[in-house]
Amino acid sequence: MDLTATTETLYERYVAELQQIADIRYAVALLQWDQETYMPVSGAAARSRQVATLSEMAHSRFTSSTFGELLAELMQRPDLTPQQSANLHLSHYDFEQQARVPASFVRTISETVSRSFHAWMDARKANDFNIFAPVLEELVTLKKEEADLLGYDKHPYNALLNQYERGCTTELLDNTFGTLQPPLKALLDKIAACPQVDDRLLKQYFPEQDQWQFSMDLLEKMGYDLDAGRQDKAEHPFTINFSSQDVRITTRIDEQDLGNMTWSTIHELGHALYEQGLPAGQYGLPLGEAASLGIHESQSRFWENNIGRSLPWCQYFLPHLQKYFPSQLGNSSPEHFFRAINKVYPSLIRTEADELTYHFHVIIRYELEKALIGGELSVKDIPAFWGERYNHYLGIRVPDDRRGCLQDVHWSHGSFGYFPTYSLGSLYAAQFFGQLKKEFPDMDEITRQGKFNIALEWLRGRIHQYGRQYTSEELCKNLTGEGINIDHFMQYVTEKYRFIYSFQPEGDAL
Amino acid sequence: MDLTATTETLYERYVAELQQIADIRYAVALLQWDQETYMPVSGAAARSRQVATLSEMAHSRFTSSTFGELLAELMQRPDLTPQQSANLHLSHYDFEQQARVPASFVRTISETVSRSFHAWMDARKANDFNIFAPVLEELVTLKKEEADLLGYDKHPYNALLNQYERGCTTELLDNTFGTLQPPLKALLDKIAACPQVDDRLLKQYFPEQDQWQFSMDLLEKMGYDLDAGRQDKAEHPFTINFSSQDVRITTRIDEQDLGNMTWSTIHELGHALYEQGLPAGQYGLPLGEAASLGIHESQSRFWENNIGRSLPWCQYFLPHLQKYFPSQLGNSSPEHFFRAINKVYPSLIRTEADELTYHFHVIIRYELEKALIGGELSVKDIPAFWGERYNHYLGIRVPDDRRGCLQDVHWSHGSFGYFPTYSLGSLYAAQFFGQLKKEFPDMDEITRQGKFNIALEWLRGRIHQYGRQYTSEELCKNLTGEGINIDHFMQYVTEKYRFIYSFQPEGDAL
Repeated sequence: MDLTATTETLYERYVAELQQIADIRYAVALLQWDQETYMPVSGAAARSRQVATLSEMAHSRFTSSTFGELLAELMQRPDLTPQQSANLHLSHYDFEQQARVPASFVRTISETVSRSFHAWMDARKANDFNIFAPVLEELVTLKKEEADLLGYDKHPYNALLNQYERGCTTELLDNTFGTLQPPLKALLDKIAACPQVDDRLLKQYFPEQDQWQFSMDLLEKMGYDLDAGRQDKAEHPFTINFSSQDVRITTRIDEQDLGNMTWSTIHELGHALYEQGLPAGQYGLPLGEAASLGIHESQSRFWENNIGRSLPWCQYFLPHLQKYFPSQLGNSSPEHFFRAINKVYPSLIRTEADELTYHFHVIIRYELEKALIGGELSVKDIPAFWGERYNHYLGIRVPDDRRGCLQDVHWSHGSFGYFPTYSLGSLYAAQFFGQLKKEFPDMDEITRQGKFNIALEWLRGRIHQYGRQYTSEELCKNLTGEGINIDHFMQYVTEKYRFIYSFQPEGDAL
Repeated sequence: MDLTATTETLYERYVAELQQIADIRYAVALLQWDQETYMPVSGAAARSRQVATLSEMAHSRFTSSTFGELLAELMQRPDLTPQQSANLHLSHYDFEQQARVPASFVRTISETVSRSFHAWMDARKANDFNIFAPVLEELVTLKKEEADLLGYDKHPYNALLNQYERGCTTELLDNTFGTLQPPLKALLDKIAACPQVDDRLLKQYFPEQDQWQFSMDLLEKMGYDLDAGRQDKAEHPFTINFSSQDVRITTRIDEQDLGNMTWSTIHELGHALYEQGLPAGQYGLPLGEAASLGIHESQSRFWENNIGRSLPWCQYFLPHLQKYFPSQLGNSSPEHFFRAINKVYPSLIRTEADELTYHFHVIIRYELEKALIGGELSVKDIPAFWGERYNHYLGIRVPDDRRGCLQDVHWSHGSFGYFPTYSLGSLYAAQFFGQLKKEFPDMDEITRQGKFNIALEWLRGRIHQYGRQYTSEELCKNLTGEGINIDHFMQYVTEKYRFIYSFQPEGDAL
């Protein structure tokens, strides 16, 4: 490549190359979407190799020395626009990170993950962690090796955390979770002392077809652009995109539980609204990507909990729900419905947890992964560690591996360091929501009227349009004047659950 | 690459490379499947570039000089197994063909096709050929250039025909069509002199959901492996695959016409059964591919017409159909139903034509394309040519472009030389079917009992398992003892339509 060309010419080459790599990655995403939605069972073997080949191609093009030289040359050019410079710095950071991991290592991880996923499925089926343990052991060893390849300060787990949330460290998480635990535990104790809310109205028979129709209605009313997205059914709900103009979600329907589909759909909607709001003109470039997984999760939690599990949301949506389910919900009131959908109780399964106990599910996984990668916990001791922590934090006994340490798919995918982003997202969401309410004091009334576009446009203007321009913490500071601060979450939940469980405010509660 | 390695090592490299190229091509196929079935409208722009990038990657890897050298070296090795040798010879042929077309030319064609497809859609909408003409002009020029690049004997159209049906020439087609026309015309004249059959029972109201259920039942009964395939809805029915273990079809449903969905589904089923029967162990290699488009079409026509539009098929399936549509079909008899689904009449639209007039639709397109590529016909004169030929062959007036020369998508895709494979397929199908009946004299009874696996296993053993090992004509000779011979088709249709239209046999009819 001729590196003496004009900045404009070189930048065009950089864009063309990144966009072609994006084409490959989005093709991989479609292969995966299809695998989870429509692929016939016998297609699995060929699909695995197709995903592996294309992933490897994308990785090897991105980490090629030619591309590295192009980046290095461009970074030195004085005549870059601020936007060009932002893209290049982010690409250079990604390049440095990914180039540290050789292709052979990527292939080894990918092959181990493939075996590991099947072992995890078998182990779940047999309800026996021992079936998963040997390959998990291999994976943990590989992850420690990956941490060494990537490099880190202080704790090897930091290298893994950083892959999902740039700049995230055990220090930040120890501090955040350490500050969060005492007031959250106090609130849970207070709730436990109150009479439990009655959520039986959610556990009636809600026919699949009616739930599906409602979900489509819900998506449209809450701002999902269905010309640039669609919903399908899958075993595990997820959001995936092939450009900002094609952002898809999946849902699952439990005919005995209306809540399962409804808030899972709103959660994925939150992710999808973010992707649909990223700048379309930056296809394949860092400024066209999400800021981080934590910020992504803040968007899903914002819509799922702060908006979707609020009283005004119930006041707007209950009449619609009653049209779909007249016999089941005809006699319900918004207040009753609001209480039912916010029932708090310690439970075994993370994905079914309420928004308060949820953090303890994450904290347990965080402590476990940190010890595992740090070498203080060995794989064989995971079930015992799990049981002890669930008893310690939530006061419940874990009856078996399936409802214990085998419940999440993450480790079998080789994802260590991912869980903390769920809690960070929830904390950011509450902080952003607090700011929104400051700027729109009548936000409750706005939600009650179903004007969800107000909140959406606010998020688009404050977060979505910037793509990866700012880190999570920078975004948070720009938006709220400070970095992550658990007080906003505590304020939001204290106020909300005081109403739901009808307990008295204390002088020092906030 | 070290070309002094053992044959085994080099062959493994060849397989690995071809299989990775297949991974890319199958990803392209999935991008296309999704585009036709589920993609939201706004996803189109990014999808186009994803398809273009991946197609170009596959082409450039396949035509790389490294791969060419590997092939050349392997071809000289004396210690190849017959199977290895067959794969290598076919790959070498493909390499020679594709390497003649430079990447820049592929890109130009692909860009022109993209514009051309939209122009064709606009032209159809406006019912005005002039909108399509300028870009079609460009495409024809490019196709002539492509013929020159590929090289040919006698007629440039041969280079294009050869892309879809290896060894197919204007000589072979002039001869085949020339022999076919007189007896086919005579048969049509005889039918025209008989009272027309009554097909009103097909044109009742058949609800979409019931048609869909029936189609899934039909697919299963006729041998489609639904663990290795699926059916979805699309505007234009097609078959596509991502390995022999994931072969999908699409259908469309017209609630006013049961025939539309039913025989289109069986047609695609025929294509799918072929793909599902190709050797799975030859993933990505020539021996894992279909022999030719003509043979592919022979499989779809075999099931659609020779089996699917036969009296025994009606005797087996009518009772099932009556369960799905009791009020519409309850009073019908197999004989009445059989006549209705085989109504013969000259019509304007190729895809709706009966199996007799169908050939004239193809002959007209063949004559037109040959003249176009040969330079004797210019684009602006296409509508006039079209009208004159439809009047000449079918005695009907073409009222407008939409129902005339704008009806097919093929040219807008850059496909010239494709249409003749439809007729060849139909002729091969009749010839294969004749052979099957020779070997299984009780074939009618077998079909009447719904034992479709007998015919399927016969096709698998005689055709499917060989992949691309034999050319169309070789396969035909192996199977029937002679090359393509229109007598088998004429014998099949004469016997069939003599029954349907109740005319008397003539001494010399066969």
